Amino acid sequence: MKRPTIADIARRAGVSKVAVSYALNDRPGVSAAKRAVIKAIAEEIGWRPNSAARALSRARAHSVGLTLCRPARILGVEPFFMELISGIETELSGRSYALMLQVSSTPEEELEVYRRWSGEGRVDGVILVDLRFADPRVTVLAQLGLPAVVIGHPSESGPLAAVWSDDAAAVRETVEYLAALGHRRIARVAGLPELVHTVLRDRAFTAACAELGLGTPAVMHTDYTGAEGARATRRLVSAPTRPTAIVYDNDIMAVAGMSAALELRLDVPGDLSIVAWDDSPLSQVVRPALSALTRDIPAYGARAARTLLSLIAGEQAADAEDPAARLVPRGSTAPPPPTADTRGRPP
Amino acid sequence: MKRPTIADIARRAGVSKVAVSYALNDRPGVSAAKRAVIKAIAEEIGWRPNSAARALSRARAHSVGLTLCRPARILGVEPFFMELISGIETELSGRSYALMLQVSSTPEEELEVYRRWSGEGRVDGVILVDLRFADPRVTVLAQLGLPAVVIGHPSESGPLAAVWSDDAAAVRETVEYLAALGHRRIARVAGLPELVHTVLRDRAFTAACAELGLGTPAVMHTDYTGAEGARATRRLVSAPTRPTAIVYDNDIMAVAGMSAALELRLDVPGDLSIVAWDDSPLSQVVRPALSALTRDIPAYGARAARTLLSLIAGEQAADAEDPAARLVPRGSTAPPPPTADTRGRPP
Repeated sequence: MKRPTIADIARRAGVSKVAVSYALNDRPGVSAAKRAVIKAIAEEIGWRPNSAARALSRARAHSVGLTLCRPARILGVEPFFMELISGIETELSGRSYALMLQVSSTPEEELEVYRRWSGEGRVDGVILVDLRFADPRVTVLAQLGLPAVVIGHPSESGPLAAVWSDDAAAVRETVEYLAALGHRRIARVAGLPELVHTVLRDRAFTAACAELGLGTPAVMHTDYTGAEGARATRRLVSAPTRPTAIVYDNDIMAVAGMSAALELRLDVPGDLSIVAWDDSPLSQVVRPALSALTRDIPAYGARAARTLLSLIAGEQAADAEDPAARLVPRGSTAPPPPTADTRGRPP
Repeated sequence: MKRPTIADIARRAGVSKVAVSYALNDRPGVSAAKRAVIKAIAEEIGWRPNSAARALSRARAHSVGLTLCRPARILGVEPFFMELISGIETELSGRSYALMLQVSSTPEEELEVYRRWSGEGRVDGVILVDLRFADPRVTVLAQLGLPAVVIGHPSESGPLAAVWSDDAAAVRETVEYLAALGHRRIARVAGLPELVHTVLRDRAFTAACAELGLGTPAVMHTDYTGAEGARATRRLVSAPTRPTAIVYDNDIMAVAGMSAALELRLDVPGDLSIVAWDDSPLSQVVRPALSALTRDIPAYGARAARTLLSLIAGEQAADAEDPAARLVPRGSTAPPPPTADTRGRPP
């Protein structure tokens, strides 16, 4: 269905497009009665201002919205979000834009926030994180005509601009590095399975293992907490064919996994190599220091903010690819123990 | 100088107070010429709406402001802020309030943000963190008449409402516990020396050591990063009379300090006991798990938000004291080594 325009309203009301524009923007130049008719027709056919027109026709809010839909205890654990926010902020504050932040407890609540922000003109645009498959937020934001940038893979961002980095490349680099060290059984402790980036990493991980002839790897999903990271680790290393290397989706799980391994009398990296995804100061202060996939998260946030500000200014914005995470080997990775390669093989 | 009122404008313009109110609030009922004169006089004498009048006279912004004046790399490291924000959010989102967040790079920039927010009616109130002595933000916020809650000690919050917890009590509990284990030389690795809570903890620490006959303790100030935490630890344990216990102002420094001690062949807790201030998931996933001063930071944030919402609603708000942090002993604290007590004593 085509989106209703001012021309459609003008035709139905039997007035000029200029008159419609005056009426909808509450400017003088059209009678009160005509204004009421025009607004009723606009309502009836579901007309909404598009973002460019709105940006021109009314004062900007000079703020940008970000909603986070994760429980408090998880937000506190993830340096990722605070680093992302500070990167967004460096770009916004230079242009006197503020960041409107809202933590929501359900995806439905998040949709309501967008509708309210758009209806009240509270923000000029939004940045969307934790992209899901067939994400309803993408559809709703497109319908609202609110400028929006997705931090996530462009295959799932629909008509919205995406700022993304190639997680599959980073996964391949990691698996190839571990295989080069001699590891044949590499497992993955992943984040929430409903998030697009988790699934893309899962697929890339399984594909890379297959390509290198390592068979199907064990992948366990968690809620990103240390408790679940430790639990997944215990289950993996208790299996008859235990992995000699584990790649974690965040650093708190990697540290928890390392502690769980120590408690089971496994040496890191002697018996078990550990890689953390997303490097952070934490990776560097523990011993052994964690080998990690590192990237400049504040720069990633700044890129998303710049893209959004271009959209708000009425410019076209293309998807923007940030550099993929780079593997930084530290003390938590080493060749597997000499006995590991024979265990679990058919006799 | 007395703050100019609507009555002052009315007297100068030779009109009624009602006419002034109509003019300043852009309501009909006063001619365009008279409106212009009234606005010019208001501008000339520096009139500003006070918060109560503004809350009544115009639509609320339905948002609350928070500025953070710390570099990006430090914000990412501190679970404290994200936990505080999520606590503030739980209270705000239930009442459809948004949080306006701004990261500023200097205290002056922070003052500008408050002036802009107030002038543009962007927020209904603000929450102030990282309180300093003779903090200019307290004065500016009081002048602006913007409802504000300080997360910090009431002795330095001026006319603003303070939400605080008794850090001195938590310090005493910690020093007494370490002294009861047998420690005689306890050091402190503290945060930024310009923050009120750092100085109050310093004083309480020195006082508690003196009371227990432990002499003047070593206190080192840092920027909260792991790098500075490790460096302070190396300097402390390399001194001729090295401490047998160190209390850190955050957990990333405590973990970094533990690693630095291990590298110097000191066992934790055998040779050195470690306590972290502010517990977090990190304290629990490292080995040994960190003895820590724990408190419910989201609840602290929620309390501050509730206090601010009361102020915005025009109610009086008293200072609110949250429970002091409680000491949770884990694996990083133990009695000092038997030789420690004799070292450094006069012969």
